[in-house]
Amino acid sequence: MGTEFLKIIDVEEAKKIIRNLFKETYKLKSENIPVGDAYNRIVSEDILSTIDLPIFDRALKDGYAIKSEDSFGANEENPKILNCIDKVEAGSFSKKTIKTGECIEISTGAPIPDGADAVVMVEYSEKLEESSTKDIAILKSVPPTEDISKKASDIKKGKLILRKGTILNPVKIGILSAQGIDDVNVFKKPIVSIISTGNELLNKNEKIEPGKIYDANTNLIKGVVLASGGIPLTKDIVKDDYNELKMKINGSLNSDIIICSGGTSAGVGDILKNVVDEIGEVLIHGISVKPGKPTLVGKIKDKIIIGLPGNPVSAIIIYSIFIDSHIRLISKSPEKGGNKRINFELAKRIHSAKGRMEYLLVQIKNDKVYPILKDSGAIASLSYADAYVKIPKSVEIVDVGEIVEVILF
Amino acid sequence: MGTEFLKIIDVEEAKKIIRNLFKETYKLKSENIPVGDAYNRIVSEDILSTIDLPIFDRALKDGYAIKSEDSFGANEENPKILNCIDKVEAGSFSKKTIKTGECIEISTGAPIPDGADAVVMVEYSEKLEESSTKDIAILKSVPPTEDISKKASDIKKGKLILRKGTILNPVKIGILSAQGIDDVNVFKKPIVSIISTGNELLNKNEKIEPGKIYDANTNLIKGVVLASGGIPLTKDIVKDDYNELKMKINGSLNSDIIICSGGTSAGVGDILKNVVDEIGEVLIHGISVKPGKPTLVGKIKDKIIIGLPGNPVSAIIIYSIFIDSHIRLISKSPEKGGNKRINFELAKRIHSAKGRMEYLLVQIKNDKVYPILKDSGAIASLSYADAYVKIPKSVEIVDVGEIVEVILF
Repeated sequence: MGTEFLKIIDVEEAKKIIRNLFKETYKLKSENIPVGDAYNRIVSEDILSTIDLPIFDRALKDGYAIKSEDSFGANEENPKILNCIDKVEAGSFSKKTIKTGECIEISTGAPIPDGADAVVMVEYSEKLEESSTKDIAILKSVPPTEDISKKASDIKKGKLILRKGTILNPVKIGILSAQGIDDVNVFKKPIVSIISTGNELLNKNEKIEPGKIYDANTNLIKGVVLASGGIPLTKDIVKDDYNELKMKINGSLNSDIIICSGGTSAGVGDILKNVVDEIGEVLIHGISVKPGKPTLVGKIKDKIIIGLPGNPVSAIIIYSIFIDSHIRLISKSPEKGGNKRINFELAKRIHSAKGRMEYLLVQIKNDKVYPILKDSGAIASLSYADAYVKIPKSVEIVDVGEIVEVILF
Repeated sequence: MGTEFLKIIDVEEAKKIIRNLFKETYKLKSENIPVGDAYNRIVSEDILSTIDLPIFDRALKDGYAIKSEDSFGANEENPKILNCIDKVEAGSFSKKTIKTGECIEISTGAPIPDGADAVVMVEYSEKLEESSTKDIAILKSVPPTEDISKKASDIKKGKLILRKGTILNPVKIGILSAQGIDDVNVFKKPIVSIISTGNELLNKNEKIEPGKIYDANTNLIKGVVLASGGIPLTKDIVKDDYNELKMKINGSLNSDIIICSGGTSAGVGDILKNVVDEIGEVLIHGISVKPGKPTLVGKIKDKIIIGLPGNPVSAIIIYSIFIDSHIRLISKSPEKGGNKRINFELAKRIHSAKGRMEYLLVQIKNDKVYPILKDSGAIASLSYADAYVKIPKSVEIVDVGEIVEVILF
């Protein structure tokens, strides 16, 4: 036993190493998916319109397609009588061309027949049933283009419709569909394998026995990876065994990132560090932070590997501080809503470990900050936390009544 | 032809009928799903803890389990020497009981052996290798409970851990997992069948031909249903044919809600209305609103059926105003972030249809409101819309410079 860290480094240095690791290691990829499945995804290239919208002059109302000048001067008292030569419904078209004195019955969405330049709504027309010819009385004078949606008036073929980086909300998906575009290139989300390690962890459905606990980390980390925009791939629990862990990690190298938890502290013999040392490179092993000192960061080939502490509360704090923003960045997810900083009065004295940056969970009640003084295994207590405070490594005591800056979750 | 609406009703009356319809027709259901898949779902019952957490007194550090009184007075110069009688790692336990003068080597997470009441961190100990007995020098005086997480200190068995209605964020999922709870009852999301109708609509991969257009509504409505928290089930396009539509609707009655688009205006002969009249009940057919007058609302057995206008822009406006909030409510999704109302100056005169409430899409530029004066088929133009303004039915003209209230999307 005995802590054998590579080299304990400061929080800021760790952040820099992790930033560079993601930048240099992870390459943005795109994938082609059905437009209908692309809700909330991000387009990975500029998209041009492939057709005019509308693709033809379209009737906006049910009524009669006419030459507008045939209606000039018409009103209820002085209707103009036109000869109806055809009927066209949405989805079909008329082969006839309207000449002066003629009209064609038309439905909303149907293409405007040749020769016509306006539509008179059905409300402003009257069928002259008694007449032997198909005569229609037009009761209103309409200008050219009345109730016609002109070809390409919404968008012209070849125009930019979506810029690279656009988030596909329902309307944007509708635009692509209206263009007849079935598939779209979007940024691929990073795949994150999740491996919990520990002899003490029970697998699902195993009965509790002395010394054993249920694994919280697999599902907990799956949740935060989802929240960051990654695709989690949960793996079976691994015992504190070098070969078993190495095999599981080798089998997870088809993902972009591997997040282990547990197996990083000295007590279990630095198994994770030894595995990464052998098949990859350890970049960080030990950060001067509480909780989460035994955090490991490394790479194996072009994949990123993170070792979080085994305690769920520590794991989640380290993930939030060091990993979350990078997974959001590479999965093109929006920045976390929170991370808002507010000042409050401290309601209870804090004793902090000197020589390490401490992230302490707190609850905010009546505008005062109450530290959550539970150990970092206490996951149920974590659910009361609203925020955390950062206590610099040089500070040992923060007293009641001092103003502290809290960072909201 | 000729518009044959049941009875055109006002917006407020329509909202009331729809509110009552959802209230009386849709029954909240719950389903049992794996905890690991429950991210962002809502628990449908109070959940009590099934075990104490921790389930045993747990070591928080690597070191030695001792009787604390054996350490009293110890320091670097005056160590206390204890006899190490066993070793216990996480996941196992010691059968031995510590007596005065004895200690047991212990790993983080391992159960505290009987007789011990404190842990001394390994950093404050020294193995006396040269000694023939297994002697350990304790270099620090520690109080009782030092570095022990007491059984049930995080949460007691039988206590409420999640209240009905709690959203399952990663931490809450972690709590359930730590309890060994594998499955959880959550509110079921409503299943929404989506049917686009129209002779003019091309199915996926069909080549464009005269008078035909690509269907935007299926994917557009799928997107907004997802945004509201429902589970969309998209169906093939239906032609304007009574029997075909009736068959498709009958085949969709295993969902909770059916949303059709198109087929509601007079031009296609009120097909949807006639189908609902036959196999169910039409509650609304025609709302005094622009766009979206031919909107239909009805029920078939215990299922809700909505007929949206065929034009995508009209469809989306009617969905936003009349349907979205109800699907959010029954799927227990958060209220829409937007719906914020702000006053701005109008930059361009608006002519509105008298006698109907009008919802007009607008773009906000330099703190001024620009109406988007495109027809309601113009979906590409819709992508520039930031908000809409409501123009009461009594108003015909809103002039440049007037202050209007915009409702943000």
